Amino acid sequence: MSTETPAPVPPAETQEVPAPPSTEPDPAVEGGGSTEGAEGTESRADGYVQPEVDVPALQRLLDGRYAEVRGLVRRNLVEHADILTDAETMSRDDYRDRVRDLVVEMAATGQTGMGFPVEHGGGGDPGASVAAFETLAFGDLSVLVKVGVQFGLFGGAIQQLGTRRHHDEYLPRVITGELLGCFAMTETAHGSNVQAIGTVATYDVETGEFVITTTTEDAGKDYIGNAAAHGEVAVVFAQLEVGGEGRGVHAFVVPIRVAGQPAPGVRIEDDGLKMGLNGVDNGRLWFDHVRVPREALLNRFADVTPAGVYESSIENPNRRFFTMLGTLVTGRVSVGAAGISASKVALTVAVKYALQRRQFDASDDEQEELLLDYGMHQRRLLPLLARTYALHFAQEELTGQLHDVLTGRVDDEQTRRELESRAAGTKALGTWHATRTIQECREACGGAGYLAENRFTALKADTDVFTTFEGDNHVLLQLVAKGLLTDYASEFEDMDQLGMARFVAGLAVETVVEKTRVHQLLERVRDLLPGGDEWDQEAGLLDPDYQLAMLRFREEHMISGVARRLKRGIDQGMHPGAVFSRVQDHVIGAADAHMERLVLEAFVARTRALPDGDQKVALNLLCDLYALSVIEADRAWFMEHGRLSVQRSKAISREVASLCRKIRPLADDFVDAFGVPTEMLRATALVGDLG
Amino acid sequence: MSTETPAPVPPAETQEVPAPPSTEPDPAVEGGGSTEGAEGTESRADGYVQPEVDVPALQRLLDGRYAEVRGLVRRNLVEHADILTDAETMSRDDYRDRVRDLVVEMAATGQTGMGFPVEHGGGGDPGASVAAFETLAFGDLSVLVKVGVQFGLFGGAIQQLGTRRHHDEYLPRVITGELLGCFAMTETAHGSNVQAIGTVATYDVETGEFVITTTTEDAGKDYIGNAAAHGEVAVVFAQLEVGGEGRGVHAFVVPIRVAGQPAPGVRIEDDGLKMGLNGVDNGRLWFDHVRVPREALLNRFADVTPAGVYESSIENPNRRFFTMLGTLVTGRVSVGAAGISASKVALTVAVKYALQRRQFDASDDEQEELLLDYGMHQRRLLPLLARTYALHFAQEELTGQLHDVLTGRVDDEQTRRELESRAAGTKALGTWHATRTIQECREACGGAGYLAENRFTALKADTDVFTTFEGDNHVLLQLVAKGLLTDYASEFEDMDQLGMARFVAGLAVETVVEKTRVHQLLERVRDLLPGGDEWDQEAGLLDPDYQLAMLRFREEHMISGVARRLKRGIDQGMHPGAVFSRVQDHVIGAADAHMERLVLEAFVARTRALPDGDQKVALNLLCDLYALSVIEADRAWFMEHGRLSVQRSKAISREVASLCRKIRPLADDFVDAFGVPTEMLRATALVGDLG
Repeated sequence: MSTETPAPVPPAETQEVPAPPSTEPDPAVEGGGSTEGAEGTESRADGYVQPEVDVPALQRLLDGRYAEVRGLVRRNLVEHADILTDAETMSRDDYRDRVRDLVVEMAATGQTGMGFPVEHGGGGDPGASVAAFETLAFGDLSVLVKVGVQFGLFGGAIQQLGTRRHHDEYLPRVITGELLGCFAMTETAHGSNVQAIGTVATYDVETGEFVITTTTEDAGKDYIGNAAAHGEVAVVFAQLEVGGEGRGVHAFVVPIRVAGQPAPGVRIEDDGLKMGLNGVDNGRLWFDHVRVPREALLNRFADVTPAGVYESSIENPNRRFFTMLGTLVTGRVSVGAAGISASKVALTVAVKYALQRRQFDASDDEQEELLLDYGMHQRRLLPLLARTYALHFAQEELTGQLHDVLTGRVDDEQTRRELESRAAGTKALGTWHATRTIQECREACGGAGYLAENRFTALKADTDVFTTFEGDNHVLLQLVAKGLLTDYASEFEDMDQLGMARFVAGLAVETVVEKTRVHQLLERVRDLLPGGDEWDQEAGLLDPDYQLAMLRFREEHMISGVARRLKRGIDQGMHPGAVFSRVQDHVIGAADAHMERLVLEAFVARTRALPDGDQKVALNLLCDLYALSVIEADRAWFMEHGRLSVQRSKAISREVASLCRKIRPLADDFVDAFGVPTEMLRATALVGDLG
Repeated sequence: MSTETPAPVPPAETQEVPAPPSTEPDPAVEGGGSTEGAEGTESRADGYVQPEVDVPALQRLLDGRYAEVRGLVRRNLVEHADILTDAETMSRDDYRDRVRDLVVEMAATGQTGMGFPVEHGGGGDPGASVAAFETLAFGDLSVLVKVGVQFGLFGGAIQQLGTRRHHDEYLPRVITGELLGCFAMTETAHGSNVQAIGTVATYDVETGEFVITTTTEDAGKDYIGNAAAHGEVAVVFAQLEVGGEGRGVHAFVVPIRVAGQPAPGVRIEDDGLKMGLNGVDNGRLWFDHVRVPREALLNRFADVTPAGVYESSIENPNRRFFTMLGTLVTGRVSVGAAGISASKVALTVAVKYALQRRQFDASDDEQEELLLDYGMHQRRLLPLLARTYALHFAQEELTGQLHDVLTGRVDDEQTRRELESRAAGTKALGTWHATRTIQECREACGGAGYLAENRFTALKADTDVFTTFEGDNHVLLQLVAKGLLTDYASEFEDMDQLGMARFVAGLAVETVVEKTRVHQLLERVRDLLPGGDEWDQEAGLLDPDYQLAMLRFREEHMISGVARRLKRGIDQGMHPGAVFSRVQDHVIGAADAHMERLVLEAFVARTRALPDGDQKVALNLLCDLYALSVIEADRAWFMEHGRLSVQRSKAISREVASLCRKIRPLADDFVDAFGVPTEMLRATALVGDLG
């Protein structure tokens, strides 16, 4: 199939893998390894000099081009910090109203309208809008989600799916918060599979109206923010039927409440108490032949003429659906950002706690040991800190891409699809990271972390739904994988998972397999590294090109594996659904590997661009820790695929521990640079006197 | 050092590890592996016949010897099921009172007093007491923890640390719930390190009283259940001072509330809102020269004569302290059990949801696919199900040991220490399992899982503190490791972590290293298996002896590694505290490996004892899935230590997936056998009509 010579087996590795049972002491255990030997003297013999972190400069770096709006949001957060206690002391109804009032107040400062067109009263800066939302996530998350519902989902749908007439009619009042609305897509029976929703909108040519109907009880709209109390209108997603023909899912502006009462034909139910986010009034909506004018259709991508003729600039219904959904990408970009911000709050509290809490004697005559001086405590918190930095920079890059697409600076199909894929993947990584980080930080604060007077109670309960709303994380990673597989064949990804299985198993698989043959992967990876065929044996563990090459190899190998598995299953005559089910964990693994590579690339690019100096040295510690933690966590895979010798695998674990010790004295600076306002930490007993 | 021949390198492995970069398709990807090849035909070609599960019989097996008391608790849970909604609708004060009333009502049925002596109104059956507590954990967890505080901690301390006079005076009223009390050990500044608490009890020989004093503000007792509202007395742990001499931590019965008001000299503060368990009135206590009679000292292990002479049957103060604490082991045994029960509730909801929720098309003409038919969903839930079974049987064994020790059937030092170690480790594993399982199950139920009307909201918030109360899990695993290291030298483990580092590095290390040399490990492991030196290459993956040998090898190798690392650090002149810090993650890893081995042994023993038949076949599937999931999760370690070839590692992952598919049709039966009362699932919309 190819004239390439297979890369030879690195000789050093064959001698050592697997380590034969032996009476000799294991070098890792006995400290014979060179990395291990250097540990005790890292601040002397190996030339490492602990860098000084310039905290204000580092915060400026993190705040980036949106420092101004972030500053505005921080001031608003501090001014309204009492919402954090209101959340605990008020009744649910009062808390909801308080959150609504606060959202309207914040809207008046301009922070929530940054993404809307200037002509309607917005800021005309989508990137700033995401940065504002990201910063707002340091505070009460009901406020955040209410902002997201009103300005991101509801306002965003009108902006992105509607046309001039909708913009003129609604946007000015949406931006001020005068008109509160809902984004009514999800139904009780259908969340992830939006194409199968049961709400129907039938065009009545006699009256020139659409008739909106909930066809079954479990086709009721569910979990809809602003529905239970405050929303006056809703953007309702429904199956459009024109002249007896189904045209797929479209969106309509439908009044749901008049003078505080449900509009005629609309039934509303409160979703009741939730795990968290109880300042947001989620509810259910059922429509019983609710009539709206023809103009209620958000008609950017499709319209119905008065005479009942369906018209769309996008012929393929699947593609039309995914194009519509694609315009709503800001929501996912924002939720991922919020997850990362919530992680910053949790880490700030936990690191500061670990720097003042002492427990157990370090020696006989001194005071007890600080928690952060325990190796295990460093191992628990510091890789999460490094990952938070990594995700921050990946998110920054994503926000930049979103800004470019939404402002039309870049507007090709390929970039839009890349943006959607990256938004999906970053949302999954960012929100899972939040769940994991908040939990670890809570446990690291012991019983004190369990009291509501610190942030963990709210952070845990409020962020929990992030992993499944705005797209279930597993479904989102499948979307990413679909993009990776179909990209190879330059085909559109407007297909469901069955389609994907069939498609990949058919035309595309030869291309995928050809493009991802192991030796070709190696060849491409080799371009990154000067080391020749033994690139992965000789390169330094702290060489970012080595780290990137490892993650890129894993990603491409996994994508190739998925394609082959799909093809094999189909070739064996298995049902495509069964094939997909069996390959699903590989599909998700490949998407995850892809995302980790993108995250590392973003981090490496950002640190490389820095001028030489302490700041660069300090950030490189975090970048190395992130990269090696990722490789360490999946070192079994790398060993299984010949990319890691046993010795090197152990060396990576030692290097991770060594990096943790180097980062330990800088940890306080690193969390300070997040710029979480002190008032948002609340837990004075946990974090000490921060003044 | 030894005449043993090192075990030869298995020839099959050297050829294949590491997998050389190659143009050949990876066998795992292409399905060339034998296990993979069998996947498509597992229910035909490999002779596997799906077993039928007899659910009532399986529940009887799980309920074990305590079926009767479990039945009583289940009936009580169902009768008072409305507490689950009261928890959401009542004010905090009302909810606390409601929980108190319920606890007293349940006490009247006898379920909470099973562990107390018959002569004082108890059941005289400590094992039944744990089983009752375990079953109670299916319901509202504030009720559970209030029961734990009153009968386990407070009552248990009086029973275990007191003598006849205390038993006669307090136990009858404790058992009925007439006298509610506190277990006042933890202080704001000291949780894990109890030996360093700051409360002082000075003997005043003039009056024959102890004077209890909180020496600093942060030496106040904190997080104390029953303190904020309901408790009348407290067992207070304080540094005893007699005649100017410190005697270490002892316990005293101290009145804290008289006619609903704080007793003179006692200051009480409410801990306020917590993440969960808000039906329990946790609070803080400060003592300002509070005088109690000499008889208030719980004097089973030490006493002070009226003339002020200190007397104790245990000379070594450290050993005395650990002996006192050791008698309180029931608390840890109970919390671990509760964590496992909470996991059962979460899994029951999530599995039933996955068996009725459909999303996305499986094929063009059928209905959408059930969630549990997705490979990823099986991978998420079914290993957790298998682990829950495994932990159940390990917990059952532990409860049996506790029963034997507390009833005096077995009463040697060694057994007591084993019990304490096992209780600590099982508590850590069981409670972390709960956190992880509940989170995964919540996410697996999507948005529906976020509504409070199902159990996840309460389960998450209420169980969260389980990982850090009754001993922080990391500290508990250190305790386990300490036992493992010092056991080798037959010394007592009454030393802190510094002592451990010094001790192990000194006398003991030669013994440890000698006993755990790799070839000797292999020799011992070899006894388990007939396969000779290639036991780990030739044995079937589903052979329990293979699985046990793998876990035993890992455990012993890790313990040995810890000992060597400690010794090396000390030999290099490092401070013992620094040495410990660096080795800490290995210490915890070794303890974890030890516990996983014990859990698997318990599961294997239980399944082996079953008569041949479907039930045994079914349980073996779970046991295999548990064992292989554990090995898979740490397969990097096994590869790094020469116990797993690349091929075999991949085969284990395939086998895990295959086992998931085999368990899939039995999943509903497996959760039904947990016997969680339907009323405790609440989430009718999630789990469908269970009637």
